[in-house]
This record gives sequence, structure tokens and C-alpha cells, in this order.
Amino acid sequence: MMQKGEEPLSIRQVERSLAVREAGDKEVSDHFQALDRLWRPRAIAVVGLSDKLGNMGQMFAIALKNQGFKGPLVGVNPGAEVKSLPSVRRLQDFEGPLDHIIICVPAREIEGVIRDAVEKGVRCAAMFTSGFSEEGREEGRRLEERIAAIAREGGLRLIGPNCMGLHYPPRGLSFRPDMPTAWGRTAMTSQSGGMALSTLMNCAERGVPLGKVVSYGNECDLTAQDFIRYFADDPDTDRIVMYIEGTKNGPELIQAMIAAGRKKPLIVCKGGRTSVGTRAAASHTGALAGSREVWQAAFRQAGARVAASIDELVDVIEAEERLGKPQGRGLAVLTISGGFGVFATDVAAEHGFAVPQFAPDTAAAMAKFINFPGTSVKNPLDMAAAIFFQGDHAPIYAPLGQDPNVHAVLVLLSIEYIHLIEGFGPLDPVSFTKWFLEQMFKGLRAAGKPAAFVFFESVKQAQRLEYVKLIRDSGFPVFPTVERAMKALKAVCRM
Amino acid sequence: MMQKGEEPLSIRQVERSLAVREAGDKEVSDHFQALDRLWRPRAIAVVGLSDKLGNMGQMFAIALKNQGFKGPLVGVNPGAEVKSLPSVRRLQDFEGPLDHIIICVPAREIEGVIRDAVEKGVRCAAMFTSGFSEEGREEGRRLEERIAAIAREGGLRLIGPNCMGLHYPPRGLSFRPDMPTAWGRTAMTSQSGGMALSTLMNCAERGVPLGKVVSYGNECDLTAQDFIRYFADDPDTDRIVMYIEGTKNGPELIQAMIAAGRKKPLIVCKGGRTSVGTRAAASHTGALAGSREVWQAAFRQAGARVAASIDELVDVIEAEERLGKPQGRGLAVLTISGGFGVFATDVAAEHGFAVPQFAPDTAAAMAKFINFPGTSVKNPLDMAAAIFFQGDHAPIYAPLGQDPNVHAVLVLLSIEYIHLIEGFGPLDPVSFTKWFLEQMFKGLRAAGKPAAFVFFESVKQAQRLEYVKLIRDSGFPVFPTVERAMKALKAVCRM
Repeated sequence: MMQKGEEPLSIRQVERSLAVREAGDKEVSDHFQALDRLWRPRAIAVVGLSDKLGNMGQMFAIALKNQGFKGPLVGVNPGAEVKSLPSVRRLQDFEGPLDHIIICVPAREIEGVIRDAVEKGVRCAAMFTSGFSEEGREEGRRLEERIAAIAREGGLRLIGPNCMGLHYPPRGLSFRPDMPTAWGRTAMTSQSGGMALSTLMNCAERGVPLGKVVSYGNECDLTAQDFIRYFADDPDTDRIVMYIEGTKNGPELIQAMIAAGRKKPLIVCKGGRTSVGTRAAASHTGALAGSREVWQAAFRQAGARVAASIDELVDVIEAEERLGKPQGRGLAVLTISGGFGVFATDVAAEHGFAVPQFAPDTAAAMAKFINFPGTSVKNPLDMAAAIFFQGDHAPIYAPLGQDPNVHAVLVLLSIEYIHLIEGFGPLDPVSFTKWFLEQMFKGLRAAGKPAAFVFFESVKQAQRLEYVKLIRDSGFPVFPTVERAMKALKAVCRM
Repeated sequence: MMQKGEEPLSIRQVERSLAVREAGDKEVSDHFQALDRLWRPRAIAVVGLSDKLGNMGQMFAIALKNQGFKGPLVGVNPGAEVKSLPSVRRLQDFEGPLDHIIICVPAREIEGVIRDAVEKGVRCAAMFTSGFSEEGREEGRRLEERIAAIAREGGLRLIGPNCMGLHYPPRGLSFRPDMPTAWGRTAMTSQSGGMALSTLMNCAERGVPLGKVVSYGNECDLTAQDFIRYFADDPDTDRIVMYIEGTKNGPELIQAMIAAGRKKPLIVCKGGRTSVGTRAAASHTGALAGSREVWQAAFRQAGARVAASIDELVDVIEAEERLGKPQGRGLAVLTISGGFGVFATDVAAEHGFAVPQFAPDTAAAMAKFINFPGTSVKNPLDMAAAIFFQGDHAPIYAPLGQDPNVHAVLVLLSIEYIHLIEGFGPLDPVSFTKWFLEQMFKGLRAAGKPAAFVFFESVKQAQRLEYVKLIRDSGFPVFPTVERAMKALKAVCRM
């Protein structure tokens, strides 16, 4: 959220940022080292842990246990003993190095905790505690400035307040008991804790789990741009995802994005696009209103893929992981219902893609297999009965690989069509579908062009999810609607 | 699909159609009677039935059996005896009245079947057979005209060819073995058999099943407008859904739509919106290209709700059944994650809705319940912990009913938030969620304004589907994304 007193982003800032300051090697290295060590603390304390029902400290403690955090884990509670975890009254009472603390005490108690942390030599404090500048009151803003000053002076780095902090399974870091333990090579910075955890869970469910994730909240010390600069150089990170609503330092953020965008793919999701959405994001200041164009210019300069919602964000992450960038805008659309083909063609055209006629060689080669009544080798291609062809499917799809008009393949599936044989054929529709899906994967691999599936959400959801998993496990991305597939493909093509 | 020789729709046609011809009582009554009796045949024959694997006649025969068709059901096969059903060699061999036949023979054999049907005194033939005008060849077009002439002269009505025909469970009619047996009061005309069956299955899955459905194909005799006129007067039909790609008779179709739209809600889904989509819909003629505006004008004149895809179509049907029309554009957005609220506000604004501040009385009344740290009674409203409040929820939501700024309520849910207690609380998250959902339903009913849910598709899909069913069973519509909810609400508001 944007803070009082900050300036709105301007187009001139974006232009100035184009001359990205090239930091010296030493500076880059120092920044990298400082942030890198935050991800591998030797011991962690949860400050404000109690045995009371609903205590948020418990949530963090169980999250760390569930992720198998290897080092000592301690609760801090000045007033009561804690049964669920070894605990101390003050941070200073813990023996041995204490690198990371998670702070859940009320805002009024935070200043003392920060002083204790400095005294103890803690490296980093992630502050879950809320009630600071995000409430738009002068008192909260001043308290936030005060703790930032104490930390800066004492060499303590702060994340938040009003945040969830760090998640990284290989080092046992997380912020909720039910977070995925799988991890990948996509890092994320998120202004909102909720968006971080939704993206984490969604991506894990889709089999493209995130890696290092930071929910950074109010940015009283460490900022989005600090983490973006770090992720740009991090060897564990292949791409960077950002959820952002506003910033305190537009030029610095944009510089960091542009510099990172030169090194790694950047995927951005912006909350507060409309003026009323901006009000929702930061109801205490109208400073960001009307700056949609500025943000768009910044994202464009950074070469970022832009997602308009959490669903789109996860779609784009899946597409980035599983789909190569098409060498043009020509789509081959394969369907087993003419009607779906018509719709898909409309939606593709509306998103800037072409559904061109196949080259004569392709049509001729495919016609050997697709010559059943009611089908013809046009694009979109109504596969009809050919999808059930009980032989090797590789030669059906392979010709698409040679077609100069085709740059990517979109396959449309729906249970009501692929289960056509159900109820009046001797075959079991489920095992038959699994067989022809495998054949289709083989054929699409033989074609060798970027390929995505749309599996409509119609009936038999549990069965559908099984097929969807099969498709994802085979390395192809799959979406519930053509519109979402097109938006993801557009982002991958940076259209 | 559009046929050769037909004229493209023009704006002038739409304007002329505004002066809807009011047919005389007698004419209306004759038309109604003629079409009404098609839905209650006494006996049905499947022509072209055989015991061979994959024979499409079997599909229709099993479909009728599965729907419990009450009258005699007979197979017709001139060359072989059929084991699966009582069969005859020719239609004339069947004793007793035969009202309806389903034709699955190849196109070259159809003329003889039509002559036999006339001789037998059959009322209606639904022709699954394809290979006529839809293939764009002169030969097929002439054959289609010929059978139409034979039927017209002999008093036989034709549906198709290239169609699935009729579906209506109360009379045992259907066209696939796995069609729903539940039915409702939404009728549908569909140019595409695939779109008819997808809509049928989707709507049944969502608990808003269709009633009378006709897949009409090439319209060589009975047309979309014939069925629309019939449904407008049908006492079993409350609303009419159309899937359409093109027409042979624009003025007549538009007249029928406008007249029907005055009597009942009309929901339209058009395939072939873009020029390339139109080519996909009717690759043999470009006549419809560029007429998007004409179709839009026609839909507007008919007061139709327009859906851009099959998913949207089903969304609109669900919204029409479960959501009253809001008296304005002000939405109350209730969420348990601030980030989701920001997005929802953006999407609502982008679709022409407002997310206004609550009236002071509403804010004050709700503040009694929502006074936990991190929440405030703003719109969008971050319910945070209030959603888990362990008391009567009716008074929380009831104040929305009195707020003059609020015309509809949108509730945003997601498993990762409502299962927050999982793993560190003593409560079972599933039974607790069911309890607070029931409380929420009670509260929304107390508010008494149109209310819809968005339940994001994130994790634990099977569990999500259970909650979604609970919401639908309670009479509230539910959508997977804010965007789809907004599009459906827009259609209901005819925006």
C-alpha cells in the first residue's frame, strides 16, 4: 500500500528509469550476500507465541515445524511459559546465534522487541504485527519510522510490518501450517500476504510450485525492489513473480524491475488498476489514482508479462514453465466439437492470434487419418472420430511441426465428448481416454511446437481433474477456458 | 450454418423487424399445436439401427431407453435383423401409429426413408445424418431441398439434417445415453448438436437443468424461429436459450426473437463473432462476415442477455435462475482477504459496476460485529475473523438490506482462507465451514438483496466442489472467478 507523503508515479520517472544505473560489482555482491543469508537462518524465534486458542504465533511455529526447519526453534513470551515449544522470556535469554525472528506481538509492544533483537544480534525480523502505516494514522506511521531507525542503527533488517515474511521449503521456512513442501525455481515478491499464500497454494496444486517467496507488507526497511534485485542474481531463481498494489519509491522500483527483466522473465500482477480499485488498495490516499498508464509503461519497459488477476497470474506461471514461446501468432486449433472450434477461433482472434488455413502439405498429410464423414482438414480442425483412432497417433499430429503457418497448437477437450463411447460401447471410457491422451502427447511432441490444452469444466469434475493431472504430468499446460489459455499465451508471447 | 444463396443480415432488416408482425390468434394456435405435439410422440423408430460396434442408431436407442421413453421403440434396418431392439425392415412394417423417427442412415439412403415416412404417416423426422448443405457442395444442397419438398407435400415435419433432434426427459426424449434425466423450465434451440449437449450437461451439473431442447442443424424445414415462437407460448418454458451461428432468414428470426423477448427472458450465445470465427462457422461462404453489429443490434432489440462462450452461457442461465435483478449497480463486496477485495473492485468497475462506500448506518451496524484488528467496515469489506464469529450471523449481513447504496452482494471465498484454522486449531475446518456457510446464507437472506458467490478454484478441488454444491443447493449462484460473476450479473442486468 502507498504511504502518506509519497509521490505518485509519473511518466517522467519511467523515462528516467530507462537509464538503468549499473551498480558496481562490489555493491551488487554486498546486496546479494546481505539478502541471501536471510534465507538460511540457523535458529528462529517466534515472538508472541502462547498456548492460547487462535494465537498466531502457533501458526508460524507449526508452519516451520511442518516444513522441517532444521535449526533450533524457540518461542518468546515475557509473561507465560509456553508448552508447545521450548520458550524464553526475552530474546536475550536464548543461548547461541539467533538469525531470524517472527514477531506477532501487538503493535504497542513492538518497539521493545526490536530493541531486544538488536541487542541479541538478530539478522532479520519478519513482522506479522499490523496496525502501522497501513491504517493511515500518523501515530502508526511514526512508530513504523521509529522501529526502522532503531533497526538500521543496530544492523537489523526488517520485513514488514503487516506481512507474512519468508517461505522457502528447502530451508524449512514458511508462514502457514498448510503450505506446500514442494518447491521450484519461480521466486515471488508480494505486497499482500494473502496473494502470496494463494499463489503459493495454486501453483503447487498445478504442479509448478514456487521457490523463494517474500510477503513484504509495509516495506519499512526491506522493499520489493531489494528482493527483486536479489532474485535477479539468485542462482536458485529462474523467473520472478511480483504482486504489487503501490510503492513508496517508484523510480527505484522501476529501475530494479527493468534491470531484473534484462536477466530473467518477470511476471507482474497489479492490484488497484481502476480508480475505485486503487481506493480499495489504499483508501487513505488518492495519490495513485489515474496512474494506470504509468504502471503499464513501467511493466512494458521491464518486458514483464502482465496478469490481471490471481487466476491469470497462476495461468501465466504455468504457461511460462510448460510452454515454449511460439515463433509467431498462428494457432492450430484441434477439437472434437465444431462448435467449440468456432468459439475458440473467435476468442483467439479477439486476443490477437490467427487461426490460419493449414499449408497444403499439412492438410494432405493429416487427411490420411482424418477422413471420416463430418470432418475435414481445416483449421480449426474437428477431429471427430479421429481422436478415437485405435492406432499410433504420432503421424496424425506430426505434420503440424512442418507447417509454416502454425506456431502453436491448442487442443480442446471436454468430458462429454471424450466419453462419447460411454453407455453404448464395449470400451471403458476412462482407460480409453487415458490411452488416447498418451497418444496425443506423443503426437504433439513429434510436432515439436508449443502446445496447450483447454479442458472445459463441464461434468464429472473428479474425473476431469484426473485427466488434467495426466496432461500436466506430461509437461503440457492446461486451462479451463479458451479465454484463459489465450491470455496466458499472450503473456508468454509478451503481446 | 449459413447456406449458399442466402443474404447476409443487414441493419435495415433489423429496423424493419422492429415492427413485429402480430400473427392472428388462429395462426399462433395452429403453429403452437403443430410444434407442441412433436414433444409427445406415441411411438419412435430409429432408422439405421444395427448391432455393429459404433452404430449411432444404438446411441439414440439407448438414450431413449435411459430416459424411460414410455411408448413402443423400434429399430429399422432393411438389410439385417437387430438383436438389441424389436426391429422391422421398413417403416411401413410397423403396426400402429408412429409419430417420430430418428434417421441415422447415410445421406444417399435418406430420400427413400423420407418417402417411407410420408407413406407411414409419421409426424416428424429428426435427421442425424450429415453430408448435406453444411458441406458446401451443390449436390448436398439439392438433396436437402428435395427431401424438404417431399416432406412438405406429405405433411411430414423435418428437424435437421445434421442435428441431434429433441431432448425432453418428462416425455422420455433424448439423444445420448448419458444425458441428464432431471429437467427444468429453460428451453433451448441450438444450431450445433455439440453445444446443445454441452449446455445440457453443464446446466444439469450446476443444478439448473434445461427443459425442452432442440438441436436443429441445417433447418431444411423446421427452423430456429419456429421453435422460438413455440417456446414463447409454451407453458412449460420460463426462459429461452439460443445457440446460433447463422441463419437463412434474418428478418423472420429477428421478428421471432423480438416477439419472444417481449414474453420471456431470452439468452443468446453466438458462434462466429469475429470474421475468422465466422469463416470457421461457415467456411464455404463469407456472407456473414462483418455483420457482428447487425447481430448485436438484433439481440439488443430482443432484450436478450448475450453470452460470449459456453461457460458464460451456463453462468447466465444459473444467474437468471438464482439471482433476482439488482435495482442498481452498487455492489457490496465481502471478502476474507484484502487482496481479493482489491481485485474484485477492479473487475467490478471494469464491468460497469460500482463498489460504493456503505451508508453510515450500515457501517455502524456492521461495525458491532466487524471490529477485529485489521478489519474496517469499508467496501470491499475484509471480513477477516468475523467470518469465523461463533454466533448468529444474520445481524452481521442484515444491515446491507437497508443500505440505499447497495443493490447486490458479492461474497468471495477460497479454501486457503476458510480453512485457515486447519492444522493449528482444535476445530474441524470442513464442518466449521459448513456451519458458517449456513450462517452466511441466513444473513444474506435476511438482507434480502440479490447475492452471488465467487468460490476461487485454488486447492482441494474435491472439497471445494462440496462447498459449491452446498451454496447452489441453498439457492445462491456461484462462479469460479470474479470476472465470470460480473459477466453473468451484467447479463442479468441487461447491461
